[in-house]
Amino acid sequence: MEKRQSQPLANNHISVDCVVVGFDGEQLKVLLVKRVGEEQGEVFHDMKLPGSLIYEDEDLDEAARRVLRELTGLKNIDMRQFKAYGSRNRTSNPKDVHWLERAMQMRVERIVTVGYVALVKIDRKLSQGLDDYQACWVAVPEVKQLAFDHNQILADALSFISRFCTYEPSRLFDLLPRKFTAAQLRTLYEVVYGRRMDARNFHKRMAQMPYIVPLDEYEQGVSHRAARYYRFDKKLVGSV
Amino acid sequence: MEKRQSQPLANNHISVDCVVVGFDGEQLKVLLVKRVGEEQGEVFHDMKLPGSLIYEDEDLDEAARRVLRELTGLKNIDMRQFKAYGSRNRTSNPKDVHWLERAMQMRVERIVTVGYVALVKIDRKLSQGLDDYQACWVAVPEVKQLAFDHNQILADALSFISRFCTYEPSRLFDLLPRKFTAAQLRTLYEVVYGRRMDARNFHKRMAQMPYIVPLDEYEQGVSHRAARYYRFDKKLVGSV
Repeated sequence: MEKRQSQPLANNHISVDCVVVGFDGEQLKVLLVKRVGEEQGEVFHDMKLPGSLIYEDEDLDEAARRVLRELTGLKNIDMRQFKAYGSRNRTSNPKDVHWLERAMQMRVERIVTVGYVALVKIDRKLSQGLDDYQACWVAVPEVKQLAFDHNQILADALSFISRFCTYEPSRLFDLLPRKFTAAQLRTLYEVVYGRRMDARNFHKRMAQMPYIVPLDEYEQGVSHRAARYYRFDKKLVGSV
Repeated sequence: MEKRQSQPLANNHISVDCVVVGFDGEQLKVLLVKRVGEEQGEVFHDMKLPGSLIYEDEDLDEAARRVLRELTGLKNIDMRQFKAYGSRNRTSNPKDVHWLERAMQMRVERIVTVGYVALVKIDRKLSQGLDDYQACWVAVPEVKQLAFDHNQILADALSFISRFCTYEPSRLFDLLPRKFTAAQLRTLYEVVYGRRMDARNFHKRMAQMPYIVPLDEYEQGVSHRAARYYRFDKKLVGSV
């Protein structure tokens, strides 16, 4: 089938786009980069997923890890590829094409992008360097119209996360602080799986997960009854 | 991050590779295309997954559907993207590069390929046109060294199939003839999930699946006790 020569081959560029997801105890948040552009004499501000074209010396996975490292300083984070996007319509908006051509200083045709997901803990250290990149955390329900097809990529990433956490529930704990309350864990399940869960049933379910280890520590300085902290023990996952 | 200009951008080509999987009642089979090449004056014969570079007028999904249609005549088959492959090592074997450069009549650098899976029924009609494309069905355990990284792509596809059939068990029936025996269905589960299943337990499990409908038809002309036929009723899947 490689013999068909009647039509010219697409001269494509390849990029990676990273959906970096965190959890603030109440909502899922996604790391977005501010974009400033100019279109028909008007300056516009919007946001995009962090991403990059890939360079000659790197694989797809390496490019995705570079984007995450440059933005957050994080290394050794498990990044999962979830889908490649190659529609010609990806660059149908002149606003996106002009912005990219200015940034890249080259003519841009179709760009095939490969989507990656990373689940990270949102903490102060992680967020320190974000200003330098004009990046910030945005709560998922508050994400507005993004550049290119990035809203679609984000939606697909969230659906991928809920599927792969069903296979590897331990990955959910990548989103939590080292100590967490039952209510935090339940809220995380609710936002990842998109449905409310009964608190009592959820407690019973937690008791059946030996890798969720209760601590002798409780919340401090809260007005409601102080909740117990738990930690996640990866070594106990195999015992389920 | 798009501002880094110190390293040249990869000038890539994009292809799709299709892992078309069938089931002959005993084993999973994959559709492979024969490849004849010449390397250092020696003619070699081996096999590859059916694939193609993508053309300017098509998306990734369209290219994958074109490959399947050209090879088998099949349309309207659900094809699932499972992974993109972009390692520079994909084209590290000179044999592969020379073969491709001759076929394409152009210089080939890195090719990023996107893997697609299709589950199909192996029947006479489907296999009619395969000779024209030097294509044939090969039992998965008998697949030898393939071109490029196609052994890896095949392995990833099989692992993807077992995962996505867990979510969408009805997709397994795409692999079966319209009427099938319990033994055929059990064998299919065994080869997809890679583990033996007890026949009695499997029968019990089948009885709990309302979408597996027993027919009043039995095998004909077999030396063992004739087994009952079943059919799959997609409309009853929702009732589980």
